[in-house]
Amino acid sequence: MGTMSIDLDIALAAELDPIVDVAASLDLNPENIIPFGWTKAKVPIDVLDAAAQNATPGRLILVTAMSPTPAGEGKTTTSIGLTDGLNELAKTNPEIGRAVLALREPSMGPVFGMKGGAAGGGYAQVVPMEDINLHFTGDFAAIAAANNLAATMLDNHIHHGNELDVDPRRIHIRRVVDLNDRALRNVTIGLGGLNGGVPREDHFDIVVASEVMAVFCLATSVADLKERLGRIVVAHSRDRKPITVSDIGAAGALTALLRDALAPNLVQTLEHTPAFIHGGPFANIAHGCNSLLATKAALTLGDWVVTEAGFGADLGAEKFLDIKCRAAGIWPSAVVVVATLRALKYHGGVEVADVQTPNTEAVIEGMSNLVHHCTNLRDIFGLTPVVCVNRFPSDTDEEMAAALDHLHGLGIAAVESTHWADGGTGAVPLAEAVVEAAESAGDGDAAQRARYSYELDAPLEDKIRTIAQRIYGAADVDIPAKVRRKLKQFADEGYGDLPICVAKTQYSLSTDPTLRGAPTGHIIAVRDVRLSAGAGFVVVIAGDIMTMPGLPKEPSALKIDVTEDGDITGLF
Amino acid sequence: MGTMSIDLDIALAAELDPIVDVAASLDLNPENIIPFGWTKAKVPIDVLDAAAQNATPGRLILVTAMSPTPAGEGKTTTSIGLTDGLNELAKTNPEIGRAVLALREPSMGPVFGMKGGAAGGGYAQVVPMEDINLHFTGDFAAIAAANNLAATMLDNHIHHGNELDVDPRRIHIRRVVDLNDRALRNVTIGLGGLNGGVPREDHFDIVVASEVMAVFCLATSVADLKERLGRIVVAHSRDRKPITVSDIGAAGALTALLRDALAPNLVQTLEHTPAFIHGGPFANIAHGCNSLLATKAALTLGDWVVTEAGFGADLGAEKFLDIKCRAAGIWPSAVVVVATLRALKYHGGVEVADVQTPNTEAVIEGMSNLVHHCTNLRDIFGLTPVVCVNRFPSDTDEEMAAALDHLHGLGIAAVESTHWADGGTGAVPLAEAVVEAAESAGDGDAAQRARYSYELDAPLEDKIRTIAQRIYGAADVDIPAKVRRKLKQFADEGYGDLPICVAKTQYSLSTDPTLRGAPTGHIIAVRDVRLSAGAGFVVVIAGDIMTMPGLPKEPSALKIDVTEDGDITGLF
Repeated sequence: MGTMSIDLDIALAAELDPIVDVAASLDLNPENIIPFGWTKAKVPIDVLDAAAQNATPGRLILVTAMSPTPAGEGKTTTSIGLTDGLNELAKTNPEIGRAVLALREPSMGPVFGMKGGAAGGGYAQVVPMEDINLHFTGDFAAIAAANNLAATMLDNHIHHGNELDVDPRRIHIRRVVDLNDRALRNVTIGLGGLNGGVPREDHFDIVVASEVMAVFCLATSVADLKERLGRIVVAHSRDRKPITVSDIGAAGALTALLRDALAPNLVQTLEHTPAFIHGGPFANIAHGCNSLLATKAALTLGDWVVTEAGFGADLGAEKFLDIKCRAAGIWPSAVVVVATLRALKYHGGVEVADVQTPNTEAVIEGMSNLVHHCTNLRDIFGLTPVVCVNRFPSDTDEEMAAALDHLHGLGIAAVESTHWADGGTGAVPLAEAVVEAAESAGDGDAAQRARYSYELDAPLEDKIRTIAQRIYGAADVDIPAKVRRKLKQFADEGYGDLPICVAKTQYSLSTDPTLRGAPTGHIIAVRDVRLSAGAGFVVVIAGDIMTMPGLPKEPSALKIDVTEDGDITGLF
Repeated sequence: MGTMSIDLDIALAAELDPIVDVAASLDLNPENIIPFGWTKAKVPIDVLDAAAQNATPGRLILVTAMSPTPAGEGKTTTSIGLTDGLNELAKTNPEIGRAVLALREPSMGPVFGMKGGAAGGGYAQVVPMEDINLHFTGDFAAIAAANNLAATMLDNHIHHGNELDVDPRRIHIRRVVDLNDRALRNVTIGLGGLNGGVPREDHFDIVVASEVMAVFCLATSVADLKERLGRIVVAHSRDRKPITVSDIGAAGALTALLRDALAPNLVQTLEHTPAFIHGGPFANIAHGCNSLLATKAALTLGDWVVTEAGFGADLGAEKFLDIKCRAAGIWPSAVVVVATLRALKYHGGVEVADVQTPNTEAVIEGMSNLVHHCTNLRDIFGLTPVVCVNRFPSDTDEEMAAALDHLHGLGIAAVESTHWADGGTGAVPLAEAVVEAAESAGDGDAAQRARYSYELDAPLEDKIRTIAQRIYGAADVDIPAKVRRKLKQFADEGYGDLPICVAKTQYSLSTDPTLRGAPTGHIIAVRDVRLSAGAGFVVVIAGDIMTMPGLPKEPSALKIDVTEDGDITGLF
């Protein structure tokens, strides 16, 4: 959503509340938080645990989206705007209570690459924007260090005699950096003779693609973090036995590196709404949402919690519900499905270059995609969807009215929202629709309201087929024999009951990024499967997955600078 | 100096003062510091600049050492003990004023490797020990990110058409991690065809070996940091023109990544003495001392500043004086030369396995090494050396008395010190000797008292010869024709006036690590020279230099753990 430097200018002009005041607004004793400067803090896990003892959990609102265009439809901005909008609503209706935000931390890769930062945009931002987009509180550096220590210890084990009989051709852990570094996608390491270790092919990933990141985001405590880290399968031996982080003796050291990072980070929106920004796993080979501990912290401390899941609802929302909510015992009270007229036109057959040209017919044509996601959420997961159409300057009133009318005609709640331009007040209609949807869902126990798209005790292959057919509208899945054997091996090793984490294109409900709208009769071709034993899911790869992005010819880094007064410029 | 877990046990049992109180003890307004938790903080550069306006700089005490044994002689512990000892002395003699410590930040490589942490030991430690030894305030992560972004942008430039005509065989910048990762010493990157960039040979270094680290430690302001970063030569073109960080458009982004890290970190000793711990360049291919900004901060805020330089006095002290003090316009009032009876016996011909056996004769025999360092400091640099003999349990009173008598007979101040066991009170005799030495030096202007071992306007080759002959006691240097041509090239490119940074073994005054004592008549064979245009020195390589350590068969990481209560154990 970022427009060059406007976001940073707005962020820098903002007057932030001291973070102790933000903590106090959540009834957190300022002395119990861990400050990082005066506008960022971590909230210790034991403080959160104590607060949870006496708290009624808030209502959880998930923000997801229709299948996006490459420009993105503004989920993060909507999440921020909605939270501010709920608090705006509470000013006139105190019964609403207080809303808290729970988002992912940005990776530095896109900041220096093409996409820019991920702290929202316009008047819907979390601040301090430049801190959040750069090192923030050091979580990603800690995750990278932990991941890389495991990789180093594994290669060191091989170098010093390889007692575990690690097969250098069957190493799964990859080193990571938090940059888009194309040249590290495919490398050979261990060269240079005796002094350089044992040669082998290797690959670097961006830190958000690591299993350590996924583990970090699903851990429920430091003890659980250590157990999950220990379970990560880093390699197989020559006789095909899994070799874990525990086997190489690294679980304790990795936990030591991550212990402090595991406490959720607290910042604020431009409107001083408390925001937990913590963890940021990829939405393809991982589950794509912020840390479970941060979401639980927000539910403990807030009456409303707005959170976001990556990519479109077929990927992000499905994983959020089937993986994270199932693991955490939480369940949303409503789901916001973000759409734009641009994306609707794109799914209605308009080319990207023409999506700003008024075309009401294409808007309606593209509804098939948006409605498919909404229907999934309602009929499969039992949730009430609220469509949020983010307003852009090129949108016409006629197109907008046609879009909203169409959805209303299908019985789907839908509003237009202008939080980018107007902040929380621009999202009040959205907030009202969300409150209404949540109230219709009732306040029953989360575990009782939960309806998953598949049951864990089904065979792995059946779970994959169920997701493909129910969520993607596919006719079937195509799983090659080699992949079937791997699934059987996972089941034999005791991992058959894990949930599924699909990695496929976000641009289509199918695995073909050019298939727009709501395709039917398509086949989901599974290329490979990977075990994430620490995170606790089986990754199903159905398409190109990118685990190390590259920089464009003119990366954003070229425009980033520091003035003589020490101000950062060019960040967006 | 670390003994397994004793250091951590002592550190964890310590009651720390809130960091705002430590800041207040330096007359820093608590609201003007940037807290990182409650016991660590950064002090903003503008706050330090303002304080410097009205301040009389304190007296600077350099802690260096005789040529060390692999066990280390305890420079860090002595620096901490001496600072606490000066403050102990001030309790009965308030005219002494207050003492402040300025040390390097530890690298995580040794923490997980063999050597352990670098936050002192016993009752002479800086705390919170486990934070300082792990991520601390994120400086090293920021330096790694900045360094790696430059490397990524260079490879990206080559990938996207290579307008600057970068020669892939002449790339100087290396990617870094803050781990001992042997397998990354020699790698090939850019493999995998079009999608993977341009293939080339590459090498990873540990972060402390990067020029970005050296630049960080010599920068005087954010603006100076940006200029120095921009000058780093990352590669040469095919027609042998230098290509800098500025040329690839990365200076601004690197500065943005380092801006916040550049503010010095404030912590405390076990005895609540303020300690600036900031920056940590290698003592071989860089200058091996903490950041110039931190040293200046300490001089602004303290009446006495104790700081340390890496390795023995031939390397660390020489570079501290000829490079850092010259750049900063500062000069010590006295120099502490750390020795141990073990090291004296080693230089007296005793094997490492036998240095704990009483042997007064060998102690006296090994004096040649210690005295050579002291004489250099006195006669070349005009400083008053104070020898500190760190007491170990296996030392006999007879050996200790003989050592001190020998030095006193030569007119060299020398005391025994027990700060490891006793904290500041154990270093009071050392503190008294240091005060006496400093008072004899007088309080003249630092720039006027400064005497360097060579002048900057001499030819590069002459400067190298001067160091070899004056400091190392060598007969001459041997510089191959190929290296001479490189020196000529550096001079032609305008770098002839830079100081020299020698990389050689720390175990001998010569370049042969087995030559003990004070060898004479030896030749310093120069293998290679490298330009560090951003840091502002020419590195002269005269021996094996290690820029990426490896892990031992049983790395310390295996013993590090986190208890159920969340406490880190096994760190030393």
